[in-house]
This record gives sequence, C-alpha cells and structure tokens, in this order.
Amino acid sequence: MTKKVELKQKVLSENDRIAGELRESFLSRDVVVLNLVSSPGSGKTSLLERTLGTLRDQMDIALIAGDVHTENDADRLKAAGGRMVWPLVTGGSCHLDARMISRVLPEIDLSQVELLFIENVGNLVCPAGFDLGEAMKVVLISTTEGDDKPLKYPAMFRRSSVMVVNKIDLMGTSDFSLQRVRENALRINPELEVFEVSCRTGEGLESWIDWLRSLVRKRASALSSI
Amino acid sequence: MTKKVELKQKVLSENDRIAGELRESFLSRDVVVLNLVSSPGSGKTSLLERTLGTLRDQMDIALIAGDVHTENDADRLKAAGGRMVWPLVTGGSCHLDARMISRVLPEIDLSQVELLFIENVGNLVCPAGFDLGEAMKVVLISTTEGDDKPLKYPAMFRRSSVMVVNKIDLMGTSDFSLQRVRENALRINPELEVFEVSCRTGEGLESWIDWLRSLVRKRASALSSI
Repeated sequence: MTKKVELKQKVLSENDRIAGELRESFLSRDVVVLNLVSSPGSGKTSLLERTLGTLRDQMDIALIAGDVHTENDADRLKAAGGRMVWPLVTGGSCHLDARMISRVLPEIDLSQVELLFIENVGNLVCPAGFDLGEAMKVVLISTTEGDDKPLKYPAMFRRSSVMVVNKIDLMGTSDFSLQRVRENALRINPELEVFEVSCRTGEGLESWIDWLRSLVRKRASALSSI
Repeated sequence: MTKKVELKQKVLSENDRIAGELRESFLSRDVVVLNLVSSPGSGKTSLLERTLGTLRDQMDIALIAGDVHTENDADRLKAAGGRMVWPLVTGGSCHLDARMISRVLPEIDLSQVELLFIENVGNLVCPAGFDLGEAMKVVLISTTEGDDKPLKYPAMFRRSSVMVVNKIDLMGTSDFSLQRVRENALRINPELEVFEVSCRTGEGLESWIDWLRSLVRKRASALSSI
C-alpha cells in the first residue's frame, strides 16, 4: 500500500506542475478560469446555460465540458448560445486532471476569452484533489441532496471559494434547510462565498451574474494598472 | 502512465481476490448482500430507513454505512430501528473496497443475518470498479438528477442488477422523464430490474419490499434444497 500512496503523490505532484503552467497561461492572458464541481445532477450545466443566456453577448465566454461518457453537456451549452465549447470525455476517469486540460488548450485562442468555465465530472470526491490551474473552484449543491453534504465531503468544500445552492424552488419538498447547509459549509470553510439560486425559475441568479461580471472587471483593471 | 495502469490492475485484482473470499462467506452463511450505489443525495439512506421501517421485525437486516466523513448515515439507520449497523468511514477514499468490508466483517455475526445492505460512498463513478462480494449492486437515481445519467455513467448501470428511481413525487419539477431514464438504463443494461419509488411519500415502495422478501426467501429455499 505504501507504493500506492507514493504513486498517488507522484501523480498529484505531476498534476500540480502542469496546473501551475496552465495557471500561468491563464493569468498572463487575463482569463478568469472557474472549475465547476458537484454531484451528478446538481445543475452545473443548467447554471452554465443560464449564465450564457445572460452574459453571452456581454463577455467572451469559453467552456470545457467534462464528462465520463457522452457529449450531452457540450451539446446543451452550444444550444444555449455557447460559441466556444469543447467537450472533454474522460472515457472512464472520475475527474478531470491538468493534463487533460493542457491537451484541449491549444485549440482555444485564449486572447479571445475573458471567462473560461471548466465543467468537471459529476463527483463530489475525486475532482477535489486535482488542480486544473483555475482561479477558483465553484461547488454546486442542490436542495434535493441533503444539507449535510459539506460535512460528508469536506475536501471539496474546503478547496472551493464559492458555493452555489441550486434548486431553491424545490425547498419544502424535503427537510433541507438553507441555513443549515450554509452553517455546515462555513464550518468547513469560513471564506466561502454563497449564492442561492434556482436555475429553473431564475431566482437568485442576478447576484451570481453580478459576481461574475465584477470578477472579470477586476481582473481586467488589475491588468491595466500594471 | 503505464506504471499507473499496472498498479491499478494490481489493486483491482487484489480487490477481486478479497471480494471472492467475502462472497464465499456470504453464500455459505446464506446472507443476501446488496451493494447500494448512487450520487450523493439520491436517497440511499432514505431508502434504507423506509426498508427498515417495514422489514425490521420480519427479517434480520444488517447494514454497513460507508461515508467519506461523518457517521451521519449510520446514526440515521440506528434511529430508524436498525439493530445491526456499522459505520464505515473511508477517511478520504471515494469508494468502499473489499478490504474495508473484510475489516468490519469479524464484528458481524453472519449467522444472525439474512439481508446485509452495504451503503456505498455517494459517487457514481469509482464504486463501480470495486466488487465487495455482494450478490448484486443496486443503483439509485433520483428524478432531480437528470434522465441521461445512465448514458453518462454507463459502468455503474452496466454492473448493477437493479435500478431504483427515487423521488418520483418530485416529477414535473424538471423535464425528467421516467420513460426516458428507463430507456437509457436498459440500453446500457437490458437485464436491469427497475423500481420507481418515493421515499418521502412511500409510493412504489411495496414492490421494492416484495422483491427483497422474495430474494431472501429464494436464497433460503435454495439452501434447504441442497
């Protein structure tokens, strides 16, 4: 088992090396990169569809849609008006890693991109361990999943900067509590920025969109002040 | 990367060896073992709570509740009347493996057990690869997750014998279609037995319970005919 642990360390440090290079590319080209992680079915693709619906004509958004199998998510994002969408099918792997991103990257003209979303594989465990060179991880959780998820999957919530609670229109169909999920999440990571939204009704999305706008604006002004 | 693949093979074949021993123990003691797998929040624990509610006085049920962190699920199962409940906290690992089960097993008096549920870690990818010596895998999917999940996570649906579609009381809150999820699942695995239930309202649970009863009965009669 020691050999297994050593190899895991080696794989992770190799991943960190490549992620570091990716981060440098993104920073030098002024691209904000968000790595979206969640359980299967929390609504990553729906959130991106909604985001494209509002922002596609206001900023240049690229999307890498990771999945174990199928290009369904990439197809949905194109249908939602995504002009720069790359499917990334892992063919069995339970997470995206930095090498997979570095293989897609040459196809993307980063000078044309302000905001890049990487939609990770639906999995609350393994993607937590793999840096993709992102500015931050955004973890989604839906109100149908149970409000103790941050305690059960702490690594993911610790390594994320933002938590989006989706499907708030379904509140009341279970004993999920917005206050409890927030408390549980902040106990794991007090720095978490929290948004509560419904990708179905649109409720709460304005704050998320505003936050994205300010993120891209800040990055641009930081660059111009250099 | 070849070294990584080789090691993965070695880990899996070692797992298969231990799972084989576990399977022999279970069979020789006439214990039906079901390995419950799903995304986080599909309702594995709720299904077990409901199952205990009906069957706890009718047959001897043991439960191993796996989680990355916390013993929340085990606590819920005890509160639901589970008399033989073992938490199994993986401490980071994204799936249960046969060795973890073999470590818990000495604490369980199998001669007192007719039906053993193993509640796996919430993860639709990695647990598919690890045999735990079970009679069959039961995959849960909830109507709030999207009906294309069988196509996106085919390994899990291929290796399961049963699919339980949970949260049918929430049908109509999204475009999830029972017919489509059934078609997608059967395309991956035509042998799948399918149940449609709501652990909240109780709808559809009778068929699931009947099926469990017949499973245990069949096992017992197969033994007595030897």
